Amino acid sequence: MTTTRRLAPFLGLFLLAVSATASAQESDDARRIRFPNVDGFLTLKTDLHTHSVFSDGEVWPSIRVQEAIRDGLDAISLTEHLEYQPHQDDIPHPDRNRAYALAIESVGNSDLMIIPGSEVTRSNPPGHVNAIFIKDANRLLLDDPLAILQEANAQGAYVFWNHPNWLAQRPSGTAALTDFHRQLISEGLLHGIEVVNDLTYSDEALSIAIEQELAVIGTSDIHGLVDWQYRLAQGGHRPITLVLAQERSLEGIHEALKAGRTIAWFEDLLVGEARNLDLLLPAMLTVGESAQYAVYGGDLTSVLRVKLNNNSSARLILENVGPHRFHNSPRVFTLEPGEARTLELKTGSNLPSTELELKVLSALVAPETHPVLTLPLQIGG
Amino acid sequence: MTTTRRLAPFLGLFLLAVSATASAQESDDARRIRFPNVDGFLTLKTDLHTHSVFSDGEVWPSIRVQEAIRDGLDAISLTEHLEYQPHQDDIPHPDRNRAYALAIESVGNSDLMIIPGSEVTRSNPPGHVNAIFIKDANRLLLDDPLAILQEANAQGAYVFWNHPNWLAQRPSGTAALTDFHRQLISEGLLHGIEVVNDLTYSDEALSIAIEQELAVIGTSDIHGLVDWQYRLAQGGHRPITLVLAQERSLEGIHEALKAGRTIAWFEDLLVGEARNLDLLLPAMLTVGESAQYAVYGGDLTSVLRVKLNNNSSARLILENVGPHRFHNSPRVFTLEPGEARTLELKTGSNLPSTELELKVLSALVAPETHPVLTLPLQIGG
Amino acid sequence: MTTTRRLAPFLGLFLLAVSATASAQESDDARRIRFPNVDGFLTLKTDLHTHSVFSDGEVWPSIRVQEAIRDGLDAISLTEHLEYQPHQDDIPHPDRNRAYALAIESVGNSDLMIIPGSEVTRSNPPGHVNAIFIKDANRLLLDDPLAILQEANAQGAYVFWNHPNWLAQRPSGTAALTDFHRQLISEGLLHGIEVVNDLTYSDEALSIAIEQELAVIGTSDIHGLVDWQYRLAQGGHRPITLVLAQERSLEGIHEALKAGRTIAWFEDLLVGEARNLDLLLPAMLTVGESAQYAVYGGDLTSVLRVKLNNNSSARLILENVGPHRFHNSPRVFTLEPGEARTLELKTGSNLPSTELELKVLSALVAPETHPVLTLPLQIGG
Amino acid sequence: MTTTRRLAPFLGLFLLAVSATASAQESDDARRIRFPNVDGFLTLKTDLHTHSVFSDGEVWPSIRVQEAIRDGLDAISLTEHLEYQPHQDDIPHPDRNRAYALAIESVGNSDLMIIPGSEVTRSNPPGHVNAIFIKDANRLLLDDPLAILQEANAQGAYVFWNHPNWLAQRPSGTAALTDFHRQLISEGLLHGIEVVNDLTYSDEALSIAIEQELAVIGTSDIHGLVDWQYRLAQGGHRPITLVLAQERSLEGIHEALKAGRTIAWFEDLLVGEARNLDLLLPAMLTVGESAQYAVYGGDLTSVLRVKLNNNSSARLILENVGPHRFHNSPRVFTLEPGEARTLELKTGSNLPSTELELKVLSALVAPETHPVLTLPLQIGG
Repeated sequence: MTTTRRLAPFLGLFLLAVSATASAQESDDARRIRFPNVDGFLTLKTDLHTHSVFSDGEVWPSIRVQEAIRDGLDAISLTEHLEYQPHQDDIPHPDRNRAYALAIESVGNSDLMIIPGSEVTRSNPPGHVNAIFIKDANRLLLDDPLAILQEANAQGAYVFWNHPNWLAQRPSGTAALTDFHRQLISEGLLHGIEVVNDLTYSDEALSIAIEQELAVIGTSDIHGLVDWQYRLAQGGHRPITLVLAQERSLEGIHEALKAGRTIAWFEDLLVGEARNLDLLLPAMLTVGESAQYAVYGGDLTSVLRVKLNNNSSARLILENVGPHRFHNSPRVFTLEPGEARTLELKTGSNLPSTELELKVLSALVAPETHPVLTLPLQIGG
Repeated sequence: MTTTRRLAPFLGLFLLAVSATASAQESDDARRIRFPNVDGFLTLKTDLHTHSVFSDGEVWPSIRVQEAIRDGLDAISLTEHLEYQPHQDDIPHPDRNRAYALAIESVGNSDLMIIPGSEVTRSNPPGHVNAIFIKDANRLLLDDPLAILQEANAQGAYVFWNHPNWLAQRPSGTAALTDFHRQLISEGLLHGIEVVNDLTYSDEALSIAIEQELAVIGTSDIHGLVDWQYRLAQGGHRPITLVLAQERSLEGIHEALKAGRTIAWFEDLLVGEARNLDLLLPAMLTVGESAQYAVYGGDLTSVLRVKLNNNSSARLILENVGPHRFHNSPRVFTLEPGEARTLELKTGSNLPSTELELKVLSALVAPETHPVLTLPLQIGG
Repeated sequence: MTTTRRLAPFLGLFLLAVSATASAQESDDARRIRFPNVDGFLTLKTDLHTHSVFSDGEVWPSIRVQEAIRDGLDAISLTEHLEYQPHQDDIPHPDRNRAYALAIESVGNSDLMIIPGSEVTRSNPPGHVNAIFIKDANRLLLDDPLAILQEANAQGAYVFWNHPNWLAQRPSGTAALTDFHRQLISEGLLHGIEVVNDLTYSDEALSIAIEQELAVIGTSDIHGLVDWQYRLAQGGHRPITLVLAQERSLEGIHEALKAGRTIAWFEDLLVGEARNLDLLLPAMLTVGESAQYAVYGGDLTSVLRVKLNNNSSARLILENVGPHRFHNSPRVFTLEPGEARTLELKTGSNLPSTELELKVLSALVAPETHPVLTLPLQIGG
Repeated sequence: MTTTRRLAPFLGLFLLAVSATASAQESDDARRIRFPNVDGFLTLKTDLHTHSVFSDGEVWPSIRVQEAIRDGLDAISLTEHLEYQPHQDDIPHPDRNRAYALAIESVGNSDLMIIPGSEVTRSNPPGHVNAIFIKDANRLLLDDPLAILQEANAQGAYVFWNHPNWLAQRPSGTAALTDFHRQLISEGLLHGIEVVNDLTYSDEALSIAIEQELAVIGTSDIHGLVDWQYRLAQGGHRPITLVLAQERSLEGIHEALKAGRTIAWFEDLLVGEARNLDLLLPAMLTVGESAQYAVYGGDLTSVLRVKLNNNSSARLILENVGPHRFHNSPRVFTLEPGEARTLELKTGSNLPSTELELKVLSALVAPETHPVLTLPLQIGG
């Protein structure tokens, strides 16, 4: 019976058009996802694959909007299955754009962006494929999956392959290209691939992304509640795609996706092409303005104190691979979200400058391949 | 793309019939609501007023089921508005029993009970009224509200008045009986009243309950998500009705409601008839087997040590109104959920037995009237 | 082997004079005690009764200093027992000012104030008595307790009666004046009384304070560790005395104590003379600039929304005793430290102004007597 | 003024001999350190290097005892500096066994073991050296450090080199053997080396331990409070040495130390000889009784589900280096204290048995060398 949720009474009163924004903005800040902008681009947080009751999800589109606002996302897409409509006895609505329209209504004063989208739901190949930035989902209701993707592309869609590791279609759990996928790629009809979907990550999908120059995508594919599925109260988060965009707009996201400037975030893992992690990591992981040699008992030592900051919501697992060992830390260590930690490096002698080299074990640029971040250290007087 | 939530693929695979139970039972225990059974009755936890997309709620019935399982409830009712169907363009389903049927399907192996119910949604009088334990909601689709309630009663329904303090119908926020309500009561058609609804509590509704011998009801009337509306991550809980039942069954709940054995729980407040709180409080608030006089420096003192236990999820606010002052506590104090606290009473001399008298400031048996619990103390050797 | 704690090496190196301040100031903010200043006075947080190894405590004076800095106190006194020196085999130091001197050394750059003091440790009467603001503890080493207190007063001391409810001297736990105490008071030698000591509170001591015009004092009397004794990790706090002072200085504290401007804080309880709580409560408990009538469905209601703020570290237990009932809260409720809560008052009609009357159940101005705070409400347009 | 801590009153009453045990055992369980026993040995938790006011520490020995009980340790040693006595003006006690004697008194009914010990405090070489299991510290008060260590060994001592990386003596922070140390080792006078001391870890010390067959030791070297120095409220822990002993006794610890069966625990890092981590890791990190292939949509997949348990208080950082990739986890991941996590392995086909191979990045058996744990998997029907 809350003021903002109350139904209008019978016979004549109107439904209050209350946006989801107000109550969501009052909510606890703990779950808000934060990543810094990078050199030359904004870091937008997106979930490009979600469901509502308009296909096989368990919530009205308004809940997807409120979850996204609470998570601090910039954009989501409600990608209902075109062909799979288990609620059709109850929701026979013929308009496949309906979830999008309701989500737009729910956005209210929030600046959350809603990307129109649909999920093509076929046996493999091609399996399931998301087409987002489409103009009219109804025109995708075609028999031939190739025809659907051609139509989607004709509408200007961004198209990505969903959960190529899905056990229902790949009992081995390993993603693998088919001739059909190769055809789609060669014809420019397929642009991205889910390397992360819900509770899974796929090394094979990452290899395909790199080899085929498909963008690395991570999505929740949420059907139930984000709070439960990703155990937010215990510190979890939904998988998302970070999009490095030139501007905060639908066009900005579209351009960045097409240009492959994406990174998926799953549990503690950041996964993406090296060129993208090379942009993100130096923004996430920074050192204080100047390092200082420790003084002990009035004497200068050759132990250099450096403040290392994690400017993000991601827990980082780091390995010291640089020229200097630590005095006050194991060589493999974690840096919690938002943590600032002072590391002490044994530099052997008093250097005018040096560097910190960290292998980011919680990031991948290829299967079994972790990026190394080199942080130059300015040494203060 | 979770194993348990995955949709069936296109053309030929069947939807996995996975109950909501498994994942919910794995969930964190922190939110599970606990109240002890009382002398002669089971204490069942119920939420008798909720909504799904089948009227103006924002979730599929399966979410209501999962929320209830996570909260440890014994029973819920999905009481969709009969007349108010804002989603009817999308969900034109003519069967008003549909939400109930879907909830039953979602229960799976859980022992959660689903009570069939509907909300009659009229201007005041009678305002909104819930009829639960009905046989067929469709037969309630009548013009005349009196006729609806007569039909509901003919079906064996339990009927209660919803949010008589609702600002849309009572801009003063004060509940007040009308002649129409008096008629319903005198004809035996109305059996309970919401003293608690969502985020509100009404002293006037409590007075009406007592004067008219209507059962005290507390409900969430949830439309969105319980997790958000009641800030579960910050320790909140949804409002519920505790039903003191002879057995754990739909019949047991029905009988207890008709007999008025109910207590509403809202924030820290327990509200109900004195006869019901007289049953519940001695089970919630117990003392250790025997109290002991403190010994100091080898000498017996006249300070009596008593262990006081809160056997429930409710925070208690207590006031010492007994014959003895405390040595180690303010006279007004809280006892957190599950807390055991040793109180020290200054009895003046060494007594063979005495008692602890606590006014329960977080309980009400009438407006401005808090019950007093007398706990006899056996004093050990 | 920390940089700041390291011992100097053998033969020739000097001990680093590292104050306790740096590491303590880096510590977690959660335990810092906060109370607002009041009309005309600063609210200083003090613990006037503590022990170190220089009588029967378990820590070096430096730990007392660091605990106080972490707790955000303004002043403490190390009040070692003059006569009771159980560690004298190990610490035979004859100078009773030694703990004070070491504490002063430990303060470093912190602005914590150390008040010189000693505990007179006699059988009852007079029992134990603290003399603070003394000039030389050694001159208090006299046989006759009266002579001690005369000497202390001659030194300008502030003198208060410790734990008059102590079970070793009062097996009933009840404080009671003796002729000797009456004599001390009438001669102006005794100025305050511990109404709160460690884990105990005494109604009888409060009565004596009021009748005899002694200042209400609350102290930890800590011997072990504050962190453990008061369960800080679980949200507890040490008992303290709030001193309403004209300036932040030793003189300011001394003047305020002599003038009786004190309030003791113990668990959730604030206890003091009415004139002092009448100063503190309006600073602790404030309402937003203007209250607003709730609007529902476009219509003005007579439910007034008021934001109530708790500007302190004390949990408040409040009872609505004003002319208007709440719409969204029980009449007895808690307001957590730092919490802001919007209350809804049912004013019946639209008033130009009104007031909120709250009985503060977690405060006492006399045994069984809780102060009432009246908050005028300006109602916005 | 607590019952258990109260001083005895003046003139005639006796000091209550209250052990520290009772209150400590009531304390919160969160800080208790847990490690499982291993094949053939008990895993005892020890802190072999601590200080009290009897050298340059800031607490009475009783606090060291209570901290250890709260941490769940099996044994500690109070290793006061023989030569460095900055509190000697206040504590001129000539008996260097005094801290030990007071600690023993404080143990009360607890089963905490106190190991007699002293810290030899010299310039480098030999720097600081701990001799524990000594018979009489006073007989170590000799000028010549070699003579001290000979005497200690004659008393049956276990001797280890303290913080060889200490900045006061090694401004580079790097541990390095001297001829004097080589002599001590060759003569059997030096048996262990601190690879971990307080907030530091030394790779060079680990190399020395391995090359010279010295036991790997980790200690807190605590001078202030364990709660503060290791931020227990934020989930930290003190550094300790795990001793793999044949029996829970002083003799058992002594034998195990001499046999080199030790592992140091520092932050997330476990460091020790390979033979010892080969014992500990299989006990800490176990798999459920049988793994199962996942079934999806009624069909058997080749994704194997394995439950991995962390049976300890240590957070583990793990890397999958086995033959199978994960379906539901990054290859580098953490396993929190006490966590059980179900991993899904893509085995390619349905195997009768296989294994999980995990590199333990949070363990070291040599500088830059992490142990690999191979866990055989029984696959259920």
